[in-house]
Amino acid sequence: MKYYAIIVAGGKGNRMNQAVAKQFLALDGKPVLMHTIEAFHKCVLNPEIILVLNTDQHRFWDELCSLHHFNIPHRVIQGGQERFDSVKNGLEVISENGVVAVHDAVRPLVSTALIQAAYEMALEKGNAIAAIQPVDSVRMKKDDQHSVALNRNELFLIQTPQTFLTAQLKAAYLQPYRNEFTDDASVAERAGFSIHLLTGERSNIKITYAQDLELASFLLKNKGL
Amino acid sequence: MKYYAIIVAGGKGNRMNQAVAKQFLALDGKPVLMHTIEAFHKCVLNPEIILVLNTDQHRFWDELCSLHHFNIPHRVIQGGQERFDSVKNGLEVISENGVVAVHDAVRPLVSTALIQAAYEMALEKGNAIAAIQPVDSVRMKKDDQHSVALNRNELFLIQTPQTFLTAQLKAAYLQPYRNEFTDDASVAERAGFSIHLLTGERSNIKITYAQDLELASFLLKNKGL
Repeated sequence: MKYYAIIVAGGKGNRMNQAVAKQFLALDGKPVLMHTIEAFHKCVLNPEIILVLNTDQHRFWDELCSLHHFNIPHRVIQGGQERFDSVKNGLEVISENGVVAVHDAVRPLVSTALIQAAYEMALEKGNAIAAIQPVDSVRMKKDDQHSVALNRNELFLIQTPQTFLTAQLKAAYLQPYRNEFTDDASVAERAGFSIHLLTGERSNIKITYAQDLELASFLLKNKGL
Repeated sequence: MKYYAIIVAGGKGNRMNQAVAKQFLALDGKPVLMHTIEAFHKCVLNPEIILVLNTDQHRFWDELCSLHHFNIPHRVIQGGQERFDSVKNGLEVISENGVVAVHDAVRPLVSTALIQAAYEMALEKGNAIAAIQPVDSVRMKKDDQHSVALNRNELFLIQTPQTFLTAQLKAAYLQPYRNEFTDDASVAERAGFSIHLLTGERSNIKITYAQDLELASFLLKNKGL
């Protein structure tokens, strides 16, 4: 069986008000993205790593790899307008049938155990979507003035990896883009596939705000790496 | 105007598999609960602090206060079976009209700025519920096999303080208990009051799991206290 990892690095860094995209920021001395790629490289299933990156960042990434003597084999391909287009570009270079994990470049703390569990569950069930349950109460906005309480026991905060049989994800990505496609599970679901949730990790945070980087550094140390 | 803070310390510590309830665990050398009380004590509106604690923990708390020379004035009252009962007990000792903040004992990192903003908004609008938006995609379970994507832009993760005009919260707590009352906003909403959300803080975490305590310690240092 052939395994793939599509690492999606769409960010331009706007949300953090920084000139450098989040995936390139230093986490314990090297770019976030290198930690992410290493996590997949350590998986015993030996996934082929496909990095999807905006074209104008390819040269900068090459320079970072040289600077850090980063030599984990990975293919770099062109990002698209939306995350949807980037994943689609990644899928296009996959020719063999197998299992593909789609993962956010800015989730560097994913464990090898979770990656392997995701591949195994997707192989058995068609897909595996990492998710955790919220510890807080959750409300949904009804209009500008009103919101309504939801049952948090029925809610899941979705992470990556989101892992699929390649045939399933390719079939799903034949659809035209829709605004509500915020992740791969929503694309697959719209295409008619049942979504299978896998218990994710609270430490598998998405680096979204400036303070997340310090938190990631803290979590990394406690991971015992 | 009279201000109150009901600090709800319901936890028996089961979720962390620890003999000591979470609110008593040491965070940078002193119990979590002392940090929480200090945050309210620092507020310039000078709230009267009411601590709701299971009766079998009162003596332990007294001993901790002696040991740590903790002398911030606060009233300790008896906790109830459910969080709902504990808050209700807290409200019963409030005689004057004013504004009351209900706050989880295990959210020690709340800022004085958020506390003050909550009191001010509740005074103006009747209530103020601290909430942040999720950075992850969110799904809702439909049955054992199925889940459906929600629009995360419409979702809010609810924190505390949840702050109310005392008359409003007292009126809401006249209702009988229901299972879906996971917080004060859900009680007030059921009683017919509109809920007003206030932007919370990502650092205002709820200490729920063992690793949260280390995270809290990290965040505390970065708060510059």
